[in-house]
Amino acid sequence: MTASDVLLVAATHGNELNAAWLLEQWQQQPSLLDDHGLGLQRVIGNPAARNANRRYVDRDLNRSFQQERLDDQHDHDCETVRARELVTRFGPQGQQPCCVALDLHSTTAAMGSCIVLYGRRPADLALASMVQGKLGLPVYLHEADAAQTGFLVERWPCGLVIEVGPVPQSLLDARIVRQTRLAVEACLSALSEARDGVGRTPRQLVVYRHLSSRDLPRNADGQPSALVNPAFLSRNWLPSASTASLFETAAGGELPVALPAEASAAVFINEAAYAEKGIALSLTAREVWPVEPTWRPALEQLIRA
Amino acid sequence: MTASDVLLVAATHGNELNAAWLLEQWQQQPSLLDDHGLGLQRVIGNPAARNANRRYVDRDLNRSFQQERLDDQHDHDCETVRARELVTRFGPQGQQPCCVALDLHSTTAAMGSCIVLYGRRPADLALASMVQGKLGLPVYLHEADAAQTGFLVERWPCGLVIEVGPVPQSLLDARIVRQTRLAVEACLSALSEARDGVGRTPRQLVVYRHLSSRDLPRNADGQPSALVNPAFLSRNWLPSASTASLFETAAGGELPVALPAEASAAVFINEAAYAEKGIALSLTAREVWPVEPTWRPALEQLIRA
Repeated sequence: MTASDVLLVAATHGNELNAAWLLEQWQQQPSLLDDHGLGLQRVIGNPAARNANRRYVDRDLNRSFQQERLDDQHDHDCETVRARELVTRFGPQGQQPCCVALDLHSTTAAMGSCIVLYGRRPADLALASMVQGKLGLPVYLHEADAAQTGFLVERWPCGLVIEVGPVPQSLLDARIVRQTRLAVEACLSALSEARDGVGRTPRQLVVYRHLSSRDLPRNADGQPSALVNPAFLSRNWLPSASTASLFETAAGGELPVALPAEASAAVFINEAAYAEKGIALSLTAREVWPVEPTWRPALEQLIRA
Repeated sequence: MTASDVLLVAATHGNELNAAWLLEQWQQQPSLLDDHGLGLQRVIGNPAARNANRRYVDRDLNRSFQQERLDDQHDHDCETVRARELVTRFGPQGQQPCCVALDLHSTTAAMGSCIVLYGRRPADLALASMVQGKLGLPVYLHEADAAQTGFLVERWPCGLVIEVGPVPQSLLDARIVRQTRLAVEACLSALSEARDGVGRTPRQLVVYRHLSSRDLPRNADGQPSALVNPAFLSRNWLPSASTASLFETAAGGELPVALPAEASAAVFINEAAYAEKGIALSLTAREVWPVEPTWRPALEQLIRA
C-alpha cells in the first residue's frame, strides 16, 4: 500500500513484445537495469491481447483511457475493463499508487527511439527535456488530434511513451530490447535526479508538434491505390519538400501531394497498426522551445511527494 | 471450364498483404505485369484470415494440404475447408484446373527474395533453375522436415513459393511489391518459354538444403532466455562459423551454439510467424547441383499438356 514513483508498462499493445521481455528479464535479474533507488511497479498492459498475440482484443487499449469511458459502467469491452483495472490499481489514487507512468511501445516505422508526449504538462516537458538532454531523442508532441484520444499516460500526473523501431509486430529483436533499455535507464536516471533535486534541463527542447495525418490514396472500394514511396520510408524526422512524392502506384508512378507549409517532418511513416486508423504517416512542425523555469519544479514536486 | 497454366495465390497467410495488393492492382490494370499469353488464375488464399488481419483463423493454411487432412470429412477447421475448396476449384482435377501453382509469401526475415521448394520434383527443379538463371534468386529446399508438412504447392503437379522480405506482418511496402512483381514476372517468363520449348536451364542449381531448425533458448516456463544475436540477423544465406554466437541474453552475453559441420548457411532468421512453431532460424547446407537433363522436359510436358 506504499506509493511508488514509477509505473513501467509494457505490451499495452499485445503484439509489441520487446519491452515485455525486457521487464520480465529484469524481474529475474535485478542487476539488468539500475532502478536508481526509485520505487517501481512493472506491469503488462494488456495480458489478454498479449496471450492472443494481437494488438488488442476489443479496442486499442492505448485509446481507452478517456475519463468518460472509464466512468461508463455500461462499457465492458476487454480494454475498457483493463484500463479501469490499471487506474484502480496503479493510478495516483489507486491501491498501489504511482506518480509517473512510462509506457513502452514499438513501431514498424524506421523512427529509431523517441519520446511521445500527449500534451503540455510541465512535469512531462521537464522529464522529456531531461531525457532529450541525456540521449538526444526526438520528442513527438501528439496533441490536438481529435481522432486519437484516451492515451494511458494521461491518467497519471506525469507520463510519457517510449517508442522504439523499426521492428515487426510479434517479433523479439535484441536491438529493440537494447534501445528500450537505454531509454528506460535515461528516464529513471532523470527521475532520480529530479527526486534528489539535482536534475538538469537543457536550455531548449526540440519538439515535433503533430499537425495532421495522411492516409494512403484509396479507391472507391476502400483499397489503397498507391503505397508510401519507398524513398520516403526512411525519412522520419527529416525535412521534406513542400510538395513531396509521398505515394507510389503499383506501376511505379509517383503521386505528388501538397503538404502544408508548416509541415517540416513526417513521423510514423508506415506503422502497420495505423492502417486501420487510416494513417499512413503523420505530419509535424519541428519547433525549438525554450525550457521554461516552471517545468523542473513541477516534476520535482511530484516525484518527491 | 478450360484449363489454365498457372494459379497465382496471394495471402495464403492473411497478414502477408503485399502480393495480394499486387494481384488486385494487376486485375485492375492488366498492363502491370506481362502474362506472356499464359492462362492465369489469381486467388486470395485465405480471405477469412486476410479480413481478420491474421496469419490464419484456426490453423496455418500452408500446413493444411496433407492429402489425409483433405480426405478427413470430420475436419471442419476454417483452413482445412479452404484447402479443400482451393484444390476442388483449381487443383489439377479441379473445376478450373491449373497445372502450376505459384504461392506468394513474405517474411519478416532479412532474406531478400527467394524460391522455396518442398521436394525434388523434376518440373519444380526445372522452373526453379530457370528462375535462378534469370534473377539469381537463392533456392531453399525445405524437405525432410517432419514437423512442417502439408504445403499448398504440393497438391499441384508443379509449384513453388516466392518468399520476399524483410517486411513486417500486416504492412504494405512498395519495395516488397516491386520484388514480388519481379519474381512473378521471371516465373511467368520461364513458364512461357517452357511452354514454347525454348526455355534454358543453367548448368548448375545452387540449393540451400534444409537440415534442421533451432528455437531460442527457453526457461522452464517456456519464455525465451535469450534472443537472436543482432550481428546474426542480417546473415541469411551467408556462411556461418561452425560455432556461432547465435543468441544473446538481455544483459548482452553471447551464447555460443555448436552447429552441425554441414550447416553452411541459416535462413528465416527471426521470422515472426515461426515463433509459435519454435523456430528462430533454420540451418541449411549450401549445395551446387548439376541441372539434370530430365528436369526441363518434365516441365515442358506439363505446361504444354
